[in-house]
Amino acid sequence: MAEAIPIIGGTGALGYGLAVRWAQSGQEIVIGSRKLERATEAAERVSAAVPGARVEGLENAEAASRGPIVFLTVPFRAQSETLTNLKDALAEGQILVDCTVPMAAAVSGRATRTLGVWQGSAAQQAQEMVPEGVTVVSALHSVSAAALTEGDPVVEDVLICGERKADKARVAKLIEQIEGLRAVNAGPLEMARIVEALTPLLIAINSRYKARAGIRVTGLPEDDDHWA
Amino acid sequence: MAEAIPIIGGTGALGYGLAVRWAQSGQEIVIGSRKLERATEAAERVSAAVPGARVEGLENAEAASRGPIVFLTVPFRAQSETLTNLKDALAEGQILVDCTVPMAAAVSGRATRTLGVWQGSAAQQAQEMVPEGVTVVSALHSVSAAALTEGDPVVEDVLICGERKADKARVAKLIEQIEGLRAVNAGPLEMARIVEALTPLLIAINSRYKARAGIRVTGLPEDDDHWA
Repeated sequence: MAEAIPIIGGTGALGYGLAVRWAQSGQEIVIGSRKLERATEAAERVSAAVPGARVEGLENAEAASRGPIVFLTVPFRAQSETLTNLKDALAEGQILVDCTVPMAAAVSGRATRTLGVWQGSAAQQAQEMVPEGVTVVSALHSVSAAALTEGDPVVEDVLICGERKADKARVAKLIEQIEGLRAVNAGPLEMARIVEALTPLLIAINSRYKARAGIRVTGLPEDDDHWA
Repeated sequence: MAEAIPIIGGTGALGYGLAVRWAQSGQEIVIGSRKLERATEAAERVSAAVPGARVEGLENAEAASRGPIVFLTVPFRAQSETLTNLKDALAEGQILVDCTVPMAAAVSGRATRTLGVWQGSAAQQAQEMVPEGVTVVSALHSVSAAALTEGDPVVEDVLICGERKADKARVAKLIEQIEGLRAVNAGPLEMARIVEALTPLLIAINSRYKARAGIRVTGLPEDDDHWA
């Protein structure tokens, strides 16, 4: 399996922003979308924004097979359907990084509110839906899509939740390819319900400060080798 | 009414840490406890730690009448009983700053888990219990009590939730008396359910990094006059 980074829902704001940043750091990207033409169009935009970008646009199921660590960046209302459609595409040993947030906006609620997810979090719902042997890791909820896309300097942390440190370490390594991002181990997958709620919290702060806020965890050891 | 800072539950870890820091910045403190002797003992410890500290220990109800902005730093399992006992002590116009966290530990659960509070958050439960005309503001959930008490440098943010910006601004002013703390407006009181959950999240991080982690919101305007 090639080492590209599939981004399912890569035509959306967060997915596109991640694609641009990873392309800048030389990673090979595959943008997935429900429609091939939308994926291709987004890939062309990445190429235009990042000269020399290694990027391709494919339908979601095809994209998901192109790398060992698949990022899911669809809106919450599309998470379940997308994962159903990926059932035959995802294979044992792959990691699915769930970036979705159960925003109340999915059912026309406020952007500062979340929905209660039966399993506890969108990430845990994803874990229930992926094929046997696929591991879900939760990450990237507090990074501003607009900041990534528009080239703002981002100096902030990404909180990563998952059952196994080894899996989280692999995701951390990819995330830290993006300049300015530090990956922080935030515990098991059940902590995703708290981390996912950082998005509406930051939206509430952004509306008051006209900012693109992120999160930094203070007080961690400076010369940390947590992921080593 | 004098301008002392009453800290209800000031013999506990967070309350004591705040007392030490405010004493260091010259604020007058009143430590409240269910038992007068425990309050007096804690006040003596503050005096020993901070030469010249203006601090007094009183029973909770007596302490609560000593200043316009009252900090509630009791464990969640004691929040309801404490507020019931303060019903005659709190008066219209006072602000109650709720610092409690609905930790699952209150019912012997894990320190990384929260309880669901019917009203949505401990702060909203507090708002339901205080006398008419008393306003609840939620704050100080992400600051390490140990760091405050043991003199660690703290350079981090305190997320403040409440209905009225003017009330939050008064609380922010007190919080920013403590060196290294910046107050951030995190929206209405209903956002407290997210901010309260930062405590178990930080506990999960602390256990992995052997740290006393806090939170910093990145991307806010540098020369911010939000509270002005």
